[in-house]
Amino acid sequence: MNNLSTKWKEECGVFGVYSKVEDVSLMCYFGLYALQHRGQESAGIAITNGTNMDVKKGMGLVGEVFREHLPAMENKFISIGHVRYSTTGSSLLCNTQPLIANYAGGKIALAHNGNLTNAKNLRRNMEKDGTIFQTTMDTEVILNMIAKSQRDTIEEKIIETAKKIEGAFCLCIMTEDKLIALRDKHGFRPLCYGKTKEGSFVISSESCGLDVVGADFIDDVMPGEMVVIDKKGLQAIRYAEANCNVCSFEYIYFARPDSILDGQSVQQARFNMGRILAKESKYTGDIVISVPDSGNTAAMGFAYESKIPYIEGLIKNRYIGRTFIQPTQEKREMAVRLKLNPIANNIKGKDIILVDDSIVRGTTSKRIISMLYKKGAKSIKMVLSAPPIKYPCYYGVDTSVRKELIASAKSIEEIKEYIGVDNLYFISEKGLRDAFDSIDPNKICYACFNNDYPVLKNDIGEDEKFVFE
Amino acid sequence: MNNLSTKWKEECGVFGVYSKVEDVSLMCYFGLYALQHRGQESAGIAITNGTNMDVKKGMGLVGEVFREHLPAMENKFISIGHVRYSTTGSSLLCNTQPLIANYAGGKIALAHNGNLTNAKNLRRNMEKDGTIFQTTMDTEVILNMIAKSQRDTIEEKIIETAKKIEGAFCLCIMTEDKLIALRDKHGFRPLCYGKTKEGSFVISSESCGLDVVGADFIDDVMPGEMVVIDKKGLQAIRYAEANCNVCSFEYIYFARPDSILDGQSVQQARFNMGRILAKESKYTGDIVISVPDSGNTAAMGFAYESKIPYIEGLIKNRYIGRTFIQPTQEKREMAVRLKLNPIANNIKGKDIILVDDSIVRGTTSKRIISMLYKKGAKSIKMVLSAPPIKYPCYYGVDTSVRKELIASAKSIEEIKEYIGVDNLYFISEKGLRDAFDSIDPNKICYACFNNDYPVLKNDIGEDEKFVFE
Amino acid sequence: MNNLSTKWKEECGVFGVYSKVEDVSLMCYFGLYALQHRGQESAGIAITNGTNMDVKKGMGLVGEVFREHLPAMENKFISIGHVRYSTTGSSLLCNTQPLIANYAGGKIALAHNGNLTNAKNLRRNMEKDGTIFQTTMDTEVILNMIAKSQRDTIEEKIIETAKKIEGAFCLCIMTEDKLIALRDKHGFRPLCYGKTKEGSFVISSESCGLDVVGADFIDDVMPGEMVVIDKKGLQAIRYAEANCNVCSFEYIYFARPDSILDGQSVQQARFNMGRILAKESKYTGDIVISVPDSGNTAAMGFAYESKIPYIEGLIKNRYIGRTFIQPTQEKREMAVRLKLNPIANNIKGKDIILVDDSIVRGTTSKRIISMLYKKGAKSIKMVLSAPPIKYPCYYGVDTSVRKELIASAKSIEEIKEYIGVDNLYFISEKGLRDAFDSIDPNKICYACFNNDYPVLKNDIGEDEKFVFE
Amino acid sequence: MNNLSTKWKEECGVFGVYSKVEDVSLMCYFGLYALQHRGQESAGIAITNGTNMDVKKGMGLVGEVFREHLPAMENKFISIGHVRYSTTGSSLLCNTQPLIANYAGGKIALAHNGNLTNAKNLRRNMEKDGTIFQTTMDTEVILNMIAKSQRDTIEEKIIETAKKIEGAFCLCIMTEDKLIALRDKHGFRPLCYGKTKEGSFVISSESCGLDVVGADFIDDVMPGEMVVIDKKGLQAIRYAEANCNVCSFEYIYFARPDSILDGQSVQQARFNMGRILAKESKYTGDIVISVPDSGNTAAMGFAYESKIPYIEGLIKNRYIGRTFIQPTQEKREMAVRLKLNPIANNIKGKDIILVDDSIVRGTTSKRIISMLYKKGAKSIKMVLSAPPIKYPCYYGVDTSVRKELIASAKSIEEIKEYIGVDNLYFISEKGLRDAFDSIDPNKICYACFNNDYPVLKNDIGEDEKFVFE
Repeated sequence: MNNLSTKWKEECGVFGVYSKVEDVSLMCYFGLYALQHRGQESAGIAITNGTNMDVKKGMGLVGEVFREHLPAMENKFISIGHVRYSTTGSSLLCNTQPLIANYAGGKIALAHNGNLTNAKNLRRNMEKDGTIFQTTMDTEVILNMIAKSQRDTIEEKIIETAKKIEGAFCLCIMTEDKLIALRDKHGFRPLCYGKTKEGSFVISSESCGLDVVGADFIDDVMPGEMVVIDKKGLQAIRYAEANCNVCSFEYIYFARPDSILDGQSVQQARFNMGRILAKESKYTGDIVISVPDSGNTAAMGFAYESKIPYIEGLIKNRYIGRTFIQPTQEKREMAVRLKLNPIANNIKGKDIILVDDSIVRGTTSKRIISMLYKKGAKSIKMVLSAPPIKYPCYYGVDTSVRKELIASAKSIEEIKEYIGVDNLYFISEKGLRDAFDSIDPNKICYACFNNDYPVLKNDIGEDEKFVFE
Repeated sequence: MNNLSTKWKEECGVFGVYSKVEDVSLMCYFGLYALQHRGQESAGIAITNGTNMDVKKGMGLVGEVFREHLPAMENKFISIGHVRYSTTGSSLLCNTQPLIANYAGGKIALAHNGNLTNAKNLRRNMEKDGTIFQTTMDTEVILNMIAKSQRDTIEEKIIETAKKIEGAFCLCIMTEDKLIALRDKHGFRPLCYGKTKEGSFVISSESCGLDVVGADFIDDVMPGEMVVIDKKGLQAIRYAEANCNVCSFEYIYFARPDSILDGQSVQQARFNMGRILAKESKYTGDIVISVPDSGNTAAMGFAYESKIPYIEGLIKNRYIGRTFIQPTQEKREMAVRLKLNPIANNIKGKDIILVDDSIVRGTTSKRIISMLYKKGAKSIKMVLSAPPIKYPCYYGVDTSVRKELIASAKSIEEIKEYIGVDNLYFISEKGLRDAFDSIDPNKICYACFNNDYPVLKNDIGEDEKFVFE
Repeated sequence: MNNLSTKWKEECGVFGVYSKVEDVSLMCYFGLYALQHRGQESAGIAITNGTNMDVKKGMGLVGEVFREHLPAMENKFISIGHVRYSTTGSSLLCNTQPLIANYAGGKIALAHNGNLTNAKNLRRNMEKDGTIFQTTMDTEVILNMIAKSQRDTIEEKIIETAKKIEGAFCLCIMTEDKLIALRDKHGFRPLCYGKTKEGSFVISSESCGLDVVGADFIDDVMPGEMVVIDKKGLQAIRYAEANCNVCSFEYIYFARPDSILDGQSVQQARFNMGRILAKESKYTGDIVISVPDSGNTAAMGFAYESKIPYIEGLIKNRYIGRTFIQPTQEKREMAVRLKLNPIANNIKGKDIILVDDSIVRGTTSKRIISMLYKKGAKSIKMVLSAPPIKYPCYYGVDTSVRKELIASAKSIEEIKEYIGVDNLYFISEKGLRDAFDSIDPNKICYACFNNDYPVLKNDIGEDEKFVFE
Repeated sequence: MNNLSTKWKEECGVFGVYSKVEDVSLMCYFGLYALQHRGQESAGIAITNGTNMDVKKGMGLVGEVFREHLPAMENKFISIGHVRYSTTGSSLLCNTQPLIANYAGGKIALAHNGNLTNAKNLRRNMEKDGTIFQTTMDTEVILNMIAKSQRDTIEEKIIETAKKIEGAFCLCIMTEDKLIALRDKHGFRPLCYGKTKEGSFVISSESCGLDVVGADFIDDVMPGEMVVIDKKGLQAIRYAEANCNVCSFEYIYFARPDSILDGQSVQQARFNMGRILAKESKYTGDIVISVPDSGNTAAMGFAYESKIPYIEGLIKNRYIGRTFIQPTQEKREMAVRLKLNPIANNIKGKDIILVDDSIVRGTTSKRIISMLYKKGAKSIKMVLSAPPIKYPCYYGVDTSVRKELIASAKSIEEIKEYIGVDNLYFISEKGLRDAFDSIDPNKICYACFNNDYPVLKNDIGEDEKFVFE
């Protein structure tokens, strides 16, 4: 029921495996399943046996794209995979990843999570020199730059490229004999690596991807770092000064709670946000309920801190997927109830504290509040583990809704009235910073809350449709 | 990842709409979505305009079967639908429902949730008289009996049939001008009805199906009652003395927490089970964690009663569906981790109270316990909101695993050792009874726990493959 | 481009294999491919291993229904199959064959080619006794009658049934241990059997089906005969006096030219029709051209007899199948040209003799004539190897166009004017009879030409939608 | 049953429409249907409205790729399409056409029929300069060269490119406002254009494509010519001296008989070949039969010249398509019989003249001969309307079987013995030349017969897998 969602879109996920002994396709497939929350629009897996490369990709969930079989090849030993976020609009099969190409140095495949802020200029300059582009993805810009580099080795070519591109990029690159992972110097998006008992190396956007294939976490790919895996083993190379700006929204909403990103447990951060919300808001009430699933962890934290009982107030239908038939306008209300249904017993006559992660457009919150009042809620106080989102993101989040950001146009008081709630509290930026107990809060990006962008907004603001990879 | 599941299978769900003003196909579709948890193997919707009937059904989820379009017809005004539980084995398209047929009285369609205990005998007797059977479903037995009844009206034919069949049956029947719902005198499976603001009548296995289409709950179809809806309105007819034996497992596991069955909120019952488990077990620990999602509500109840904090210990992957590629044996461990991943931070060094609804074969519990210890759990006490399941169910639950019921072969001490947990507590039958605060606990069936079957086990025990509708 | 076709629809094809050594599914699949011209709407294959039966069937061509795999079973040794003609209208999956059922005697599967003339009465009578019908096929009527027979053996039950049903029926029946073929006493539709070098017995609607699986022709199933194949071998049983009325249209149009039906080569009959047309019409011209493919053989015969050269005048597109996107009305002309394209060189300035098999509605002939004149034909004389079709068929041909039979409303002169041809000649009934050189012409049905129906038209003429199997 | 075919593979077909009034997608779809014989592996249609471009392409037949819908866009006015030949091997979705790209000048789409002989060098040189290639098609080489051209206009860029590429190429190019067709100076592959009554311009590989959309033939795109269609109308530009070498195999086998290529009717040429075969071989016999469909026209010519009757001896199954389930080895014979079935009546005791177009590997001919003898043929004389194929083709024909060319290794006598025929006659090269009655025989390429290649075989002979577009 994507069309009813007003959440910011998750961006993408990348995964890579290098193994002479394990089934790299199957591991990549499992890894992508674990990263599925980062992108539901398309999925792809590329493999190599050292001579040939093959890729299988398509629109849909991992389970749909690989319903019948995985890409197969004798003696395959490297695999990279990609999941892409869900979007509305026309089928864009050509924009699926990994992207695979021949260049002077042989075959290369690339999967990308992020968004370049200078892609348009780079693309234009290459077009002037006679380059053609078959997709609208930054990934193709990066591939062309690597191919055009005059450096000798693939590592140097990639580093030269990484120094020219700006913005957010986590790359997972496969050549005929190497698996290479690279993270931009800001580290906007997460990327880490690990090793299985069988000695296979694994790259994953989030640590939950390592867990699923039984790989032990080695380290995050540091901002400004490149990790090269080949027959000689793994080598981490610093290619740029880090200027760390990890995305705060990864902790608030995007990442899986069981992931640890740059040392910080996502679940712990969210739990802390809930506790801090309890302390900051000082709200009291009969029960704490969550907007499932995004508000669950913070709601537990709020309940823990406030000693107010946490119980279920809204039930989420687990079966609503991409194939939903659109109701006509008059039946639209049904579609909302289909997604979330209140438990009347727990709502009626109660003073409720309602916990969610964030408010983007406010329309969903408005519907939920209305639904709860209809079931007899006495009062509703809403708390949010993200501060008001006032500014768009240029680093890999779908900001197609940026003109509709309610907090950029309305005051908190106005939002409260719009969504029709008795009380409304957003976590403070300081409170959010305090929630990070295992990562330096200064190394985190809060630009969508405070307009403090770590990278020059080069060609940002032009009226183009962004495509995030 | 059905093959990894060791839960008892949900049975089926039925839904029906009678409306001269609303879109009955679309409402049925929404209703089936809300009942999807009751059956993921197949789905079907039948409609009539008073002259013709049409049905569209297929294997898979509601969203898959009706990916493209719903059954359509000018002036359709009655619709019935069915979802069927997930099973392994060959494609059984012929066993999908609703079943539609011509008989001397015209066209009739039937959707059934339950299991007849005397179906085999009835079928044999009719075969002796020259009747053929094109499916293996009880539904076809019932249809044939209705057609063979010498009574005058369809209501009388159905009642005559209902008096001859034994076991569990909730029927949703559509003729060319009537929508009829009927529940066996024991009321094993739930069934209720409601009315929308536009005056449309709705039948649903659970009240959550009424909620989604905006119908206000009128009443449960009482055990031994038939409800007839036609142009004259709705009429409830008692056709048999009730001997109420509502399935306790509906409250423990099958039904959606936001449903109210026979007056009892499912969420409230589960929450109470958790509280009672806390009181009975007297377990203490650092944290309460749940096996998601089946243990969530009881875990909250345990936490509420014990004051021990409830936090997330295991994260469930929301994207694992029917299309999962089977890993080879050596990668099977990945498939388990793919489904549930522990949050190491919350586990390490903790005395854990782990809450789940029930243990069937014990294999999944064993894997989860092992997973938690690997992540550093200091101790694990497991509590279950169902007593030990020692006996099979003959009333609509898939008992294909009945020979593997761990509690029928092992003592609690042995189970504890098998799954490798420090402490293990099953709710007492008395505790379970106490959890029902809005329904008379004596009107509930506990046969799978205590062998006290409300219906003679006629042809039960014979070595046949049961097919549950 | 079925919707543009105005040909009478082929009816159905049946096939059966009994073999302890060969792969009965695969042979049945090959056999259905050879009989595909008899039905393109749906296909199905049923198999048994002596204990279980399984069936796989679906809408579409043999190659589409069995795209992925054939029905499979350990030790399967009997298989029957069915192809059904192409029809417009809603998807009728429930009407696919073979039909499989349980009855008191065990499992039985049936495939039927033909049309019962008393099906409606039989159905009504059974409904009165409480029988339900899940399809609209005569096949289900026959199955019920077999099941209701009080005779002892399956052979007797089938014979009893065969004596009660009237009209056209070729049955291919599979029980758990027998393969049975039966043909009505009129022999309207063809049916024959053979044996492979490996000793497998094969039943086929046409002898071309025997050829493809390498079976040597043994004999036709005689009108009024039943053939039973089991572990004791093959036994032919006469169950009724034959009153032979083989369909003349099988020879004119339906059957494959490489088939021999009841001793008569189809190709030879068509070739003879062409020769007789030349003799009867005495037409002269520059060239003989055919409307491909239905007129090809007769055109060769005409050329042979008249010594006028036979060359290609119209080219048929081989790739137009079921999946054709419908053009809007203004582009409809394109769809016609897509199907048949004239070769201008051969047309321009020529006196043309155009050969086709028959005229049903006349619209296609009209379009073809017009097309040829546009390409510069000097004159066109059209000859047809069927006499004018004036009367509907009740024995297995789709007569949904019967109200549109041009020859039932118009004289030959009027038809000539309607289709805009210079001269028009239909073969005489005597000429048609003379074309049969290896079968007694008196044993052939010409009812659609001369209204001399061999079977009482019991419930014929009632306004019901016929369903032909 | 592609795998049983030993014919040379058809190459590709291109189509284009420019129309402000007609539906360009639908016309392109019809055009591709008419050209389907030139390629059954994949199909694609690209469209533009002057601002955006969209393409829909996929593996399979036109009817399969566009089963649901055509590419759609408001105000679309140009469309180009492509069909690609059938090949075995892995799915190569990335190699489907038209190829669409952005370059400095805007958007461009290209469809290509032919094969460049210097593609490998061109590709290598561009790779050295940093160009990446995402497919293995020559089409991408051409697109890159156009984009890299420093000329001012798109026409000049294309001409510059056309002068640098060598071999066979018929291009259909779409920019945001122009439809451009171009043919190499040798004219290996056919290309023509026409205009509908509504004033729409149409490009087609063969004239049968013009016929289907109702376009009147204007002219062939001459070898060395470019045709540009835009709002100003149509302009034909000569860009190179023609050195005409039209492929003789287009007339012998590839093209549709109803097409006229470079003034020569294909049907007439084939008919002439048959007549010449009769004169040259002086074979006598009872009947002339054809290997359908490739030998049909020549067989009619042979019959015409020799006065020996032409009748059907082999019947081809019209329903065997891509979806054929492969039989195991022992059932392979069935697959052969499924494709072609002899008519025993016409074969038995006859002295047969068997006409086919060509022998590539000889295996199919061998099977057919054997089949005919089994059916009682007294003697078989085989004649072929192509001389022995001794040399591979480098201009767009799949020569993957070139090592298996029976005539490159065996003498005619040896071939005769291998295929087991009584007599065997190949048309002489002179005879073949004489069959062309409306085109100068000196303007035709006979390289595969006589090794006289019109273009230097630059990188020919290297051991690479050719990919033909």
